[in-house]
Amino acid sequence: MIKTPYLLFLGDAPNALAAKVAQGIKDWRPEFALGQYRMDGCKADMGLKDMTLAEAKAAGAKTLVVGVANRGGVISQSWKKVLVNALEEGFDLASGLHNLLRNEPDLKAVAKATGQELHDVRVPEVDYPIANGRKRSGKRCLAVGTDCSVGKMYTAMAMERAMKARGMNATFRATGQTGILITGDGVPLDAVIADFMAGSVEYLTPDNDADHWDLIEGQGSLFNISFSGVTMALIHGGQPDALILCHEPTRAHMRGLPEYQPPSLETLRDTALPLAQIVNPACQVVGVSVNTQHMGEDEAVAYLNEVEARMGLPTVDPFRHGADRLAEALEAI
Amino acid sequence: MIKTPYLLFLGDAPNALAAKVAQGIKDWRPEFALGQYRMDGCKADMGLKDMTLAEAKAAGAKTLVVGVANRGGVISQSWKKVLVNALEEGFDLASGLHNLLRNEPDLKAVAKATGQELHDVRVPEVDYPIANGRKRSGKRCLAVGTDCSVGKMYTAMAMERAMKARGMNATFRATGQTGILITGDGVPLDAVIADFMAGSVEYLTPDNDADHWDLIEGQGSLFNISFSGVTMALIHGGQPDALILCHEPTRAHMRGLPEYQPPSLETLRDTALPLAQIVNPACQVVGVSVNTQHMGEDEAVAYLNEVEARMGLPTVDPFRHGADRLAEALEAI
Repeated sequence: MIKTPYLLFLGDAPNALAAKVAQGIKDWRPEFALGQYRMDGCKADMGLKDMTLAEAKAAGAKTLVVGVANRGGVISQSWKKVLVNALEEGFDLASGLHNLLRNEPDLKAVAKATGQELHDVRVPEVDYPIANGRKRSGKRCLAVGTDCSVGKMYTAMAMERAMKARGMNATFRATGQTGILITGDGVPLDAVIADFMAGSVEYLTPDNDADHWDLIEGQGSLFNISFSGVTMALIHGGQPDALILCHEPTRAHMRGLPEYQPPSLETLRDTALPLAQIVNPACQVVGVSVNTQHMGEDEAVAYLNEVEARMGLPTVDPFRHGADRLAEALEAI
Repeated sequence: MIKTPYLLFLGDAPNALAAKVAQGIKDWRPEFALGQYRMDGCKADMGLKDMTLAEAKAAGAKTLVVGVANRGGVISQSWKKVLVNALEEGFDLASGLHNLLRNEPDLKAVAKATGQELHDVRVPEVDYPIANGRKRSGKRCLAVGTDCSVGKMYTAMAMERAMKARGMNATFRATGQTGILITGDGVPLDAVIADFMAGSVEYLTPDNDADHWDLIEGQGSLFNISFSGVTMALIHGGQPDALILCHEPTRAHMRGLPEYQPPSLETLRDTALPLAQIVNPACQVVGVSVNTQHMGEDEAVAYLNEVEARMGLPTVDPFRHGADRLAEALEAI
């Protein structure tokens, strides 16, 4: 578990997109985002207070989070200087970079000397159990997609917010690095050993209050053959009571797989639901979340209406119009 | 790749069952099983020539394979003496034990000093790629089961033998530790990192001659929620042209999951085939393999006939009656 609140390290981000992890923290856990640390030439800005390490420390920040992607897979010397200073000032470090903080001898040595922690959220830090499939108390919702990167994390985050606004008892459960950095906790499912995948999802979503909903971050897609095994483990480890179907309608082919076409929402529903019912016979599909970012407003609304009529399910783009109708659908269960 | 032929180390096996890895090698790759090494008190016997290390070396053995399970998860000192001597005599060592050879400081040191290799087949030794889903040449058959441990490995091994006897071009592809020790090569799929599972199966079953069949060892089951993600990755990485349905009809509940019932063969067919057709639209279910070990001969034959009539597919117990009819089914494709 990563200690909060955070100082967000934006480094020398060449543009806003490079700082999307910081943006996610700012959007979804603003209470964790105490301030930002920008180096010379940084082109990203979260609109947070620029702080020195000392200022952030005085304000109560516990962890410096690397909220920016690095270039060329190297942690540069100019970054290093800040990261080392942060350890010396008493910050933990957290990162989702491919190259791990712990593999940098200087960072490792300073962390050891100062007693601070290095969190590489790409790497599991728990020995997960093998899934036992026992029925757990509380309720669980999982977003499944026609493909990878269609908005599953965004959907679950937006649902958590909408549910809390309605006074519902809900927790987003992160299964990927960005989600883990945003919430400070979770399972880096794509890095878990095959035999323990479903068990790691059970571990992430344990027994809970009867009215509590886990909103489990989806990964991959049953139809994206590179990662479908991860999705299968999420469905069976997650033991969902409700599925949300996620779709991006303008995609020409499956992500990373030029020879594969995305399935229809009907095919996704008819494939995912029986698989989920193996572990939870009461599971139902309760809504559709469409990522309409490549459509104009009129086109998006027409598309959402068409899908809603066709599927007979509440259909929204949570980014454009909020996730309130999906929250309502869960409330009705 | 493990160097062959082998000297099979039976240690102080308390019974025949403890030496089932050795038995598998003897049954399926007799040409690799040059001899056996038994310690005092060994109760297992493969019917092979008992050899000293020097005799086996002179006969051409390259690797001492630990063909026996150890007790209590410890590699005992009495075993160690033999293993160290084997390294010194110029043997590599291969093992599927949970506790790894490489984690024993003495074995590691002697292996290094002698230049011999330690093969722990539970641990992947390759950085597998992410699956790309591109159509590969040659043909592939995968055994899928109603549950774990219903005879998928045995079925694929028996099919390889039957196909070779008919002059067909076929290769068993191991995805588990026993299969890897038997054949000397393969992917320990249950130990692969989630993101690379399907890619490891593509790596295992590359482009091949148009008339060549890979017989891919199945793992887990789509219906065994602890391991279904591994099975899903096998289906999508394996790109099968043909599926064999495997079943053990007397099981009271799913293995390790007392609250779960095995599905029918029809449900297995209707679940696995559409998932396989995502990656290979031409995939078909070509036969059924039933493990009738808990049935008498008459009961078994009646059951096989009943399933064959019901499913409209060649249905055999390859252990009782051979896999010839399954080989025939592949030949017809």
